[in-house]
Amino acid sequence: MKVVLIGAGNVAHHLGSLISKSGHEITQIVNRSRPGGIKLAKILKTEFTNSIRDIDESADIYILALKDDVIAEFCTRLPFSPKLIVHTSGTCSIDVFPSTFNCGVIYPVQTFSKSIKRIPTKIPFCIEARKKSSLDTIRKFVRTLSDTCYVKTSAERERIHLAAVFVNNFTNHLFTLSENYLAAEHLSFDILRPLIMETALKVQNELPSEVQTGPARRGDKTVLREHFRLLEKHPEMKKIYGLLTKSIIIHNPDK
Amino acid sequence: MKVVLIGAGNVAHHLGSLISKSGHEITQIVNRSRPGGIKLAKILKTEFTNSIRDIDESADIYILALKDDVIAEFCTRLPFSPKLIVHTSGTCSIDVFPSTFNCGVIYPVQTFSKSIKRIPTKIPFCIEARKKSSLDTIRKFVRTLSDTCYVKTSAERERIHLAAVFVNNFTNHLFTLSENYLAAEHLSFDILRPLIMETALKVQNELPSEVQTGPARRGDKTVLREHFRLLEKHPEMKKIYGLLTKSIIIHNPDK
Repeated sequence: MKVVLIGAGNVAHHLGSLISKSGHEITQIVNRSRPGGIKLAKILKTEFTNSIRDIDESADIYILALKDDVIAEFCTRLPFSPKLIVHTSGTCSIDVFPSTFNCGVIYPVQTFSKSIKRIPTKIPFCIEARKKSSLDTIRKFVRTLSDTCYVKTSAERERIHLAAVFVNNFTNHLFTLSENYLAAEHLSFDILRPLIMETALKVQNELPSEVQTGPARRGDKTVLREHFRLLEKHPEMKKIYGLLTKSIIIHNPDK
Repeated sequence: MKVVLIGAGNVAHHLGSLISKSGHEITQIVNRSRPGGIKLAKILKTEFTNSIRDIDESADIYILALKDDVIAEFCTRLPFSPKLIVHTSGTCSIDVFPSTFNCGVIYPVQTFSKSIKRIPTKIPFCIEARKKSSLDTIRKFVRTLSDTCYVKTSAERERIHLAAVFVNNFTNHLFTLSENYLAAEHLSFDILRPLIMETALKVQNELPSEVQTGPARRGDKTVLREHFRLLEKHPEMKKIYGLLTKSIIIHNPDK
């Protein structure tokens, strides 16, 4: 398919690479800021424009990899009715699109960072469309990108996105807190990396509720007390330690 | 080496398997409760006793895979002075051992669940000993189990264990909260599994502080507001969402 990609952030970067590799032709990168857009266009070996009036009108699909709060505005400024337009947001409803548009959603349930070149091996997509014909086109397109594709409503999708924030954004932030804490104690983060891998591997075939371990899980008050003592000088971590420990205890009332 | 393993929990299970596979001879499993101890002895094809008076006195190393608060008591009840005795705790100081003991620590920085048969591919160990000769023996022994072995003091080790609680126990609990939330919304946890893998993979070569993503990181107030709305009926998750979001914002003041 002929694709116009709007945006040049983390999602645009990785989705763009994946689309290119999957045999589609990205005819244009559209982005408000020039440097980011030109950089991505160079990587994807395609054209760049930052003018909405110069957007190629002949593409089969327009993919908006934009922040939620600028999607609506982009649609109202678009000077033509696109053949098919989708956004990639987890939370933004499909109703963001004008009622006259052939539109849909392709939300990749993954995390992308520009600094990481490798594209994730597995990217489940949540797709949605107003019309059956659009949904068929989107499904066919997404199946060239991934072997996991779920049809989900906007309401379902935003709940999945919320859960994704817990397992990805919050998890990574816990890693960051540990990284900073170990650095302050002159210890290396390296020692935790295999543990982090194993934590993820464990829940690939099991449910997390079945494999919880640790002092809070086994009701080990000696260790909990010692940890609170260690965190005296780290009030932010202490608060998080307290709240999550309490939550683990509530979920494991047998201990 | 001839090994006596004391305990039959998650750590004893996996460490026992690893020790067996690495060519050592586990001569005995010692455990207060019969069923757990017999089960593990069967798996490791060895003897079982629940009587401290029947412990084999001829082993080269006694490994205590016990809860922190029973290690001291076990040592006082032991009717002989062991050739070398170690515990596997993250938080318990080496000073838990009587001053007359040849003693040390081998703390595996990993998570083990009996329900998971596979032994983690990579297990970093933190080791410690009072005497140089004990440390040499312990190091030699641990190197047969793992290619990653750090000499750490008790003070360092308990800090590493605290950080491990954040990246493993707390992380897994965030997974559990998501599992429960999705189940309540009639959605499958499956969709999050590739994201969880990628979250772990990303920090294998990068620092977590460098790859943080998500609405809190990019200051996306529209999404944050919507997520709070979705969590109205989930007060516990809402509290955790609020605290971690605030913490991410504090750590990324540029947004």
